[in-house]
Amino acid sequence: MSFSSDTAVTRRGDVFDATIHEGWDVGGNANGGYLMAIAARAMAAASRPHPVALNAHFLSPGRPGPVVCEPAVIKTGKRFSTVRGSLRSGDRPVVELLGSFAELGEVEGPVRVDATPPELPDPDDCVSFSPEAGSPTLMSRFDLRLHPEDAGFARGEPTGRPLFRGWLRFRDEPIDAFGLILAADAFPPTVFNANLPIAWTPTVEMTAHVRGLPAPGWLRCRFTTRFITGGMLEEDGELWDETGRLVAQSRQLALTPRG
Amino acid sequence: MSFSSDTAVTRRGDVFDATIHEGWDVGGNANGGYLMAIAARAMAAASRPHPVALNAHFLSPGRPGPVVCEPAVIKTGKRFSTVRGSLRSGDRPVVELLGSFAELGEVEGPVRVDATPPELPDPDDCVSFSPEAGSPTLMSRFDLRLHPEDAGFARGEPTGRPLFRGWLRFRDEPIDAFGLILAADAFPPTVFNANLPIAWTPTVEMTAHVRGLPAPGWLRCRFTTRFITGGMLEEDGELWDETGRLVAQSRQLALTPRG
Repeated sequence: MSFSSDTAVTRRGDVFDATIHEGWDVGGNANGGYLMAIAARAMAAASRPHPVALNAHFLSPGRPGPVVCEPAVIKTGKRFSTVRGSLRSGDRPVVELLGSFAELGEVEGPVRVDATPPELPDPDDCVSFSPEAGSPTLMSRFDLRLHPEDAGFARGEPTGRPLFRGWLRFRDEPIDAFGLILAADAFPPTVFNANLPIAWTPTVEMTAHVRGLPAPGWLRCRFTTRFITGGMLEEDGELWDETGRLVAQSRQLALTPRG
Repeated sequence: MSFSSDTAVTRRGDVFDATIHEGWDVGGNANGGYLMAIAARAMAAASRPHPVALNAHFLSPGRPGPVVCEPAVIKTGKRFSTVRGSLRSGDRPVVELLGSFAELGEVEGPVRVDATPPELPDPDDCVSFSPEAGSPTLMSRFDLRLHPEDAGFARGEPTGRPLFRGWLRFRDEPIDAFGLILAADAFPPTVFNANLPIAWTPTVEMTAHVRGLPAPGWLRCRFTTRFITGGMLEEDGELWDETGRLVAQSRQLALTPRG
């Protein structure tokens, strides 16, 4: 019951078999980042080892049970392989994906950043999201510690700022490039801190960019929404490793809750 | 020689014929947003009228001449159609795309924004990028006015901040949802204002989110890069219409210039 075993894929000719496992869901629907990670493993197995830029469009809810992944390599270049992917449950399309894959190392070399990792109290001084606290099953799969300033929404006290900051790690294994994709979708929706009705915000599309492999340890994460307009909102994520290097960015386009 | 005629597609059975026209290039390579707009027209013709979330991976340079677009509708939902697309020049894949399409109106309804449109001097007080000024052919296709504070790079005086702000419009027609995609890729690369060697920054992937149709007139645009790390950089775009509504966001992942 680890992330790596619960996202494993098995090759069968041109397709890959996988299973949407119980416990990666909110209200019965599997987490989008979890579904992307399964598909990305199949796409990587068909091309190059790590997702660098991965797009996913969500077509129907992912329910526990067998799924089939069908990667198709479009081009194998010098450094990147471009790959289509999909997850299907029987005849039902669940996620459609497109990605560029490469072999990544840790983030090195010249760095210029105009932003710093989020300032966070020590993990033990943050607010743990655990099953005991009545949070979704998904939250038992990793160790998520919210910045105390952002955590009041759970007791009906949203900050009014659509922002979540916090630490994240797996309980039983280090986070790899596929784990980063899950992590990019693992925090509560930022609109839970906006003064909007707390409601389902279905994701139309999510893109994750992986800059490099994280050092072992905690991820520092920040998720923000700046524009709730046109019936849509974006959610932007930044994921930093424990050594303070930006390792991934993400953006989702979701539909505004209808209050 | 307008944007709409130069991005037109003609259906031929399941595929669409189009032409990469001269003059939408920098140094002979067609602009990525221009290529995306051509493909998006074919994907829209096969599904729903407007791109809402469009991903593109760039596989080889787009040269003037005929191309074929092959859209494939993956799912037709209540509101969105999810569509794969590609542009090929003979057997050579040029761009591979994935998108969600819908029918958009102008941006209305409740709006919450945590950012404002870029403050810009009047267009006539901005710096015009015109062919006379020796800028790429592409720049003759639209009317682009850079904020004077960001325009010094052209005379060898980059600001050191990877930021471009400015106005953009077509000379001869209003900007539609497809024009927004071009506009999202029409400014000089933000790294031209970073203190880095000015060099080609090949785009691996670009995503555009269209929130609604722009009102006629100028677009106010802002492009920024915050993270140049891991051998990659992102370029984030915000496009606002003349009435001050956010109409599109974009993000590119590009490779850092090798100085």
